[in-house]
Amino acid sequence: MQEYISRAEKVLQRIDELAAISEDPDGVTRTFGTPAFLRGRDLVQGWMEAAGLNTRTDSIGNVCGRLVSPRPGAKTFVIASHIDTVVNAGKYDGPLGVLLGLNLLEKLAQQKTELPFHVELIAFSDEEGVRFHTTYLGSKVVAGSFDQSLLQKADANGITLAQALQTMGADPAQLENDALPANEWLGYFEAHIEQGPVLWERHIPVALVTAIAGQQRVELTWRGMAGHAGTVPMDMRQDALCAAAEFVLAAEQFGQAHKENIVATVGKLQVSHAASNVIPGEVVCSLDLRSADATRLSSAYEALQQQAQEIAQRRNVELAWKLVQRTAPVTCDSGLNIQLEQAIAESGHELIKLVSGAGHDAVPVSAVAPATMLFIRCYKGISHNPLENVELPDVAAAIQVSERFLLSVKS
Amino acid sequence: MQEYISRAEKVLQRIDELAAISEDPDGVTRTFGTPAFLRGRDLVQGWMEAAGLNTRTDSIGNVCGRLVSPRPGAKTFVIASHIDTVVNAGKYDGPLGVLLGLNLLEKLAQQKTELPFHVELIAFSDEEGVRFHTTYLGSKVVAGSFDQSLLQKADANGITLAQALQTMGADPAQLENDALPANEWLGYFEAHIEQGPVLWERHIPVALVTAIAGQQRVELTWRGMAGHAGTVPMDMRQDALCAAAEFVLAAEQFGQAHKENIVATVGKLQVSHAASNVIPGEVVCSLDLRSADATRLSSAYEALQQQAQEIAQRRNVELAWKLVQRTAPVTCDSGLNIQLEQAIAESGHELIKLVSGAGHDAVPVSAVAPATMLFIRCYKGISHNPLENVELPDVAAAIQVSERFLLSVKS
Repeated sequence: MQEYISRAEKVLQRIDELAAISEDPDGVTRTFGTPAFLRGRDLVQGWMEAAGLNTRTDSIGNVCGRLVSPRPGAKTFVIASHIDTVVNAGKYDGPLGVLLGLNLLEKLAQQKTELPFHVELIAFSDEEGVRFHTTYLGSKVVAGSFDQSLLQKADANGITLAQALQTMGADPAQLENDALPANEWLGYFEAHIEQGPVLWERHIPVALVTAIAGQQRVELTWRGMAGHAGTVPMDMRQDALCAAAEFVLAAEQFGQAHKENIVATVGKLQVSHAASNVIPGEVVCSLDLRSADATRLSSAYEALQQQAQEIAQRRNVELAWKLVQRTAPVTCDSGLNIQLEQAIAESGHELIKLVSGAGHDAVPVSAVAPATMLFIRCYKGISHNPLENVELPDVAAAIQVSERFLLSVKS
Repeated sequence: MQEYISRAEKVLQRIDELAAISEDPDGVTRTFGTPAFLRGRDLVQGWMEAAGLNTRTDSIGNVCGRLVSPRPGAKTFVIASHIDTVVNAGKYDGPLGVLLGLNLLEKLAQQKTELPFHVELIAFSDEEGVRFHTTYLGSKVVAGSFDQSLLQKADANGITLAQALQTMGADPAQLENDALPANEWLGYFEAHIEQGPVLWERHIPVALVTAIAGQQRVELTWRGMAGHAGTVPMDMRQDALCAAAEFVLAAEQFGQAHKENIVATVGKLQVSHAASNVIPGEVVCSLDLRSADATRLSSAYEALQQQAQEIAQRRNVELAWKLVQRTAPVTCDSGLNIQLEQAIAESGHELIKLVSGAGHDAVPVSAVAPATMLFIRCYKGISHNPLENVELPDVAAAIQVSERFLLSVKS
């Protein structure tokens, strides 16, 4: 185990070094295509080179490092995560998966281990979607599902994605050529912090990811009748906030009743022209529904829409229900998951299977290749926050499990 | 009845003329001490003079018109309301009571009716409290309860009340001398739009006001734990919005269960750092409780505080409960109310007794004199809004009832 602790120390040291490269000197902010992003990418590419990988940057700004197999006709197994961040991010969301992957390939290269497949380590350039409000730019190009119309999307300063790529020295005309052809994929593996509290609470270092939840996001507008809080009797009110509050609890209750399969959250709720002495006339709130099961996700959506309508009707309040986002669930590859499950068991850890409630680069990749993920325990489940943290023994365990897994992958 | 319709037409015509005087050319805004306020007050004083009243302005900017009784040792009966407005106000909140009072005195003066008491018509300078964030400036001076420390309060431009009074040509040093001594008061009457929907819905022109509700205003802060809407399982959440939503419904339910005596409203609710994909970690909301009964108001306050604490505890969420305002209920004078009740009955209207949920100048006055109020039906109960409106026959009925009442007042 001491070997893995030492390797984990090196991974964490590199993560700290990368985190020091930021747009904002007081935190970690490295959004797609910025000077800080490019400096961070150069650092990672340098490490890949030093590890003996064949490196290149592609036309969407990904940096790739390949450990070539001598076997004729070998396919490619991709290990990846992203190196862009949200604003005022933590250090581990993305970089941990990239630098853990680098640690594996470094070791294989040092030992001159020959695998029956190429291994390509990719640091994706954009997973968070902060700058262009569209996620997975990096992995969509590699998976061959990049939508060319995105090139015209502009950031907050009016710079289009096409212009940003040119500034980065990338060639938008090459985007299609940077897809890994479907017949060359052997599989995809991504290690990532859990971003949730399950492993933290249970003191277990890693978890198998069985699926990435699909999501439906709704905006609800409740319109009642504003009125004076002192003069309108209780039974003559059409209080939009009371209607919305009933829905907030209905969503929570639905989520709790189906907690094995669903999470339901009202994260935003705004009272229009709010004042303590005015009965709320209009409230806008959100609903975020996630499930690994497309059928259950649809029925949750329908059940809550019906409940919202029933609340509105009973309370004589108007309801506008607007679906604003829908992504389908992704199931991790069962073949790869059997290998990963074995690697976890052989490393002596209790097997925890989790559904990822957050999206990951594995989502676009899973459309063209068998994909799976390993979750790593993180401090209190906190993420997208400077408090994001991991513990050394958990990273060591993740290296051990990932290495066992990679060596067990069947060509 | 035709006589009262003609008189109501005159009242409404004057209200329109006064409403044309505004800080804002597109609406009615006439806050305390502004040039528009002074022009409006001059107009009202001119009407009072023309009606044959002895007029003067006092040191807080009220304009008073007195119909003098020849009887030695006569006391003073005050008829009043206010002529300041909120921002983007309606035309009737305040001016209706003043100009209805003027109409009564004009008629008495024309007919040379001699009453056994003086009648003083007062147009209070500030009831709304918009400029100095403190209500009843005008009536507090007349009631002798003006707090001298208010003179140092500054408006949004840093002008103190003392400076504002000087600019208006008033003398702050005279404020104490402008109180009507307690032994000179005979009583107080104010006609005012209901600002609520009861009379509108029931098609009844006027209502007897039995009391003005006391109010307790609370600010509640719920602190749970923010988290990712996709990754924190339903049973590991401390959702501050769900806690607040439960309280919103508890307040509504309490109000409905005690609807004869209580109104309970959550008017403000704000989610800190809200995002559709973040479990709310902090929510601040308001509670506005009103009742005509001090004991019931206190027990409502205690019951809801206990419910809030119970919700917080059960949900493992922190609660900060902060009382931000408390005003005691005021009961209208039973002797005056018997006279007013008779006047309503003799005018042929169904007797409706209402508690005023909004505050009025009768509140400070009632500390020194018997006071009562008459509510007048207004369009859909809408107030503090350009849509504020009244119907001619309802104003005619109010004039008739008020006149009967005034003539029945016992010296």
